[in-house]
Amino acid sequence: MSFKDELQQKIDNLNKPKGSLGRLESLALQIGMIQHTLSPTLQHPCHILFGGDHGIEHEGVSLSPREVTWQQMINYGRGGGGVNMFCRQHGFKLRVVDVGVDYEFDPEKYPHIINRKVARGTNNFLHEAAMSEADYQRCMAIGAELVDDCQQEGCNIICFGEMGIGNTSPSSIWMHLMLDLPLEACVGAGSGLNAAGIQHKLEVLQAAVAHYQQSGINSFPPHSRKWTETVIRYFGGFEMVAAIGGMIHAAHLGMVVLVDGFIMTACMLAASRLEPTIMDNAVFGHCGDEGGHQLMLKSMGADPILHLNMRLGEGTGALCAYPIVQSAVNMLNEMDNFQHAEITKYF
Amino acid sequence: MSFKDELQQKIDNLNKPKGSLGRLESLALQIGMIQHTLSPTLQHPCHILFGGDHGIEHEGVSLSPREVTWQQMINYGRGGGGVNMFCRQHGFKLRVVDVGVDYEFDPEKYPHIINRKVARGTNNFLHEAAMSEADYQRCMAIGAELVDDCQQEGCNIICFGEMGIGNTSPSSIWMHLMLDLPLEACVGAGSGLNAAGIQHKLEVLQAAVAHYQQSGINSFPPHSRKWTETVIRYFGGFEMVAAIGGMIHAAHLGMVVLVDGFIMTACMLAASRLEPTIMDNAVFGHCGDEGGHQLMLKSMGADPILHLNMRLGEGTGALCAYPIVQSAVNMLNEMDNFQHAEITKYF
Repeated sequence: MSFKDELQQKIDNLNKPKGSLGRLESLALQIGMIQHTLSPTLQHPCHILFGGDHGIEHEGVSLSPREVTWQQMINYGRGGGGVNMFCRQHGFKLRVVDVGVDYEFDPEKYPHIINRKVARGTNNFLHEAAMSEADYQRCMAIGAELVDDCQQEGCNIICFGEMGIGNTSPSSIWMHLMLDLPLEACVGAGSGLNAAGIQHKLEVLQAAVAHYQQSGINSFPPHSRKWTETVIRYFGGFEMVAAIGGMIHAAHLGMVVLVDGFIMTACMLAASRLEPTIMDNAVFGHCGDEGGHQLMLKSMGADPILHLNMRLGEGTGALCAYPIVQSAVNMLNEMDNFQHAEITKYF
Repeated sequence: MSFKDELQQKIDNLNKPKGSLGRLESLALQIGMIQHTLSPTLQHPCHILFGGDHGIEHEGVSLSPREVTWQQMINYGRGGGGVNMFCRQHGFKLRVVDVGVDYEFDPEKYPHIINRKVARGTNNFLHEAAMSEADYQRCMAIGAELVDDCQQEGCNIICFGEMGIGNTSPSSIWMHLMLDLPLEACVGAGSGLNAAGIQHKLEVLQAAVAHYQQSGINSFPPHSRKWTETVIRYFGGFEMVAAIGGMIHAAHLGMVVLVDGFIMTACMLAASRLEPTIMDNAVFGHCGDEGGHQLMLKSMGADPILHLNMRLGEGTGALCAYPIVQSAVNMLNEMDNFQHAEITKYF
C-alpha cells in the first residue's frame, strides 16, 4: 500500500460517515503528504508581509494613494492593522519587511520594520521593465532568507502577505500573460475603483503590455523558464518577487504554504511556473472579491478554503483560513477510529 | 443617527478599504446589533448536543444503523468524536443530552450524558404522529432549561448539534411543508445513501406525508402557529424539538445562535416560524453537503459562512465557523481607525 493510500485509509476509518468532513479531509490528506506522516502537526506558524511601491501607481491605476504603503507599514508596528489582528488570533509570528517602499523608515522609531530595501519603488512598466535582473535575483534571495529565519524557529506552516499600492496591476498582467487569458478578465477594482477607474486601469495596462511586446525584451519561448522570469521582473513588484522567492524556498523546506488573495495567488502562479511541484505545498486560503481571483484560482486548479468576499490583502484571507487547516490536522490526530470507539462502521 | 448607522460607521472607518473584510463586516454588524454595543464580545461559548432516535428509522431510510446513535453518545464521553475535537479547538463547553435515545445509559459509566429522556425514540411517522403534544412541550422546555444553564455560566454565543440516526428524514419533511418546496428537492443522501437508497427514502417520506394529510390531524390554517407546531411534532425528533426550544430561548436571552447543517437549519426554520425575530440572532455556520441544505438556506435568506462540503452533523459545521465569527468581533475591537492610525482615508 502506498503511503498516500495508508493516509487515506486512516482518514476513512475515523468515526464519521466516509467523506463527511468534506474539505477538511482533502486538506488533511494534503498536509499528511507534505509532512509524510499519518499524524502531521502545525508548528510555529509565521507570516511574512513584504512591502513595496510600484512605478505604475503614477498612472492613476489605484484608488489608494501611494503614501498608504508606508503609512500602513508603520501602522503594523502599532498592532492595529488587519494582519495584526489575525496574527494575534491564530498565533502567527509576524515579520514586516521593507523590500521597496518609497519612504525612509527611521529604524529607531520603527524597529518592527525589517530593512531589505532594494529601491524606493519599481520603475514604471508603462515605459520600461519594473526591475533589473539583478534586483529580481536580490528579491528572490530576500524571500528565501526570511523563510530560513522562520524555519530556524521551528516553523512548518507559512503565509505571505503584501502591502504595495498598485500591486493588483502587475498581478493582472502576470495572470493575463501566464494563463493566456484576456486582460479584461484579469483586471478588477483593487481597493475600490469604480467602472470608469477600472476602464482607465485596463487602458493603462493594455498600453503597458503593448509596449512590452513591441520592446522585444522577452524573446524567449513563451512559458519557458526565462520567459516567465522576464514577465515577472518586467511587471512585478519587489514585494511580489520576494514572496515568490519565499514560497519556493518554503516548499523546498517542506513547509505548508498558505496562500492569500489575488496578489499572493498571482505570486503562487508565477512560483509554480518556475517550480511546478510547489503546488503540492500550496493551500489556498480564500477566494477574494477582486475581479479575476476566482478565474485565476480555477485556471490553477485551486480549491480555496474560504469564500468571504474579502479583498484587504496583507495576507488576511489566508490567515483567516488557518483555523480550518488546524481543524483538518486535529481531525487526523484527535478523532477516534471506528474500532477504538466501538461504533458499528456504517459504510 | 441610529445605533445601526453608528455601528456601520465604526466598521467603515477601520483602516482598510471600505467593505474589504467582506462577510466579516456583515457579521460584525449583526453581532454588534444583537449585543447592542460597538464593542461586542463572545463569552463562554457553549455547545449543546441533543441525542434522540426516530421511529421512521425502521423503514430503512438511513444507511447508518440505529445503534450508532447510542454508540456515538457514549463515544462523546471519550473525547474522540468530531464534535469533541472542534469544542476543544475553539473553547466550547460541550453538553451531551439524551432526550430520546433508544438505549439505557448507565449514569455511573457515562456521567457525561445528561439524562432528559422523554422516550426511547419517537413513534414511526409513517403510521402516526412522532410525538404527543405533551412530549413536544416537554422537549421545548428541556431545550430552554439547558440554555439557562449555559447563560448562568456567562455564555452569550451558543451552538446546537444533534445525534439521531434517521433525522434527515423529518428535516426534509419540515422543509417540504414549511417552505412549500417539492419533497424531491428536500431529500438527500443523509450519511451516504446511494441513488436507490435515496429513491426508497423519498417513497417512504411521500407515503408518510400522504398518510399525515389524509389523517386530518392538521386542520389548522397552513403556516399558522398551531399548524407549524403540528408539523413539528408529527414528524420531528425529540432532539430536534429540544434544539428548537433551545434556539428560541437563547435568542430571547440575547445570545448569538450559531446554526449548523441540514438538521439544525431545519430546526432554525421551524423556530423562526414560531418566533420570526430569532433570525436576527442566527448566524449560519456552513452550507453542508446534504441535498436540500443549500436550497433551504437560500429560501430562508441565510448567508452561511463556510462552504466546505461537510455533512457530519453533531454541530461540527457551526463549530468550524466559530473562529471566523471571532475574527469579525476582533475586527471591531482591535483594528485601528484611520484617524488614530494616521493613514490617509482613501475612499
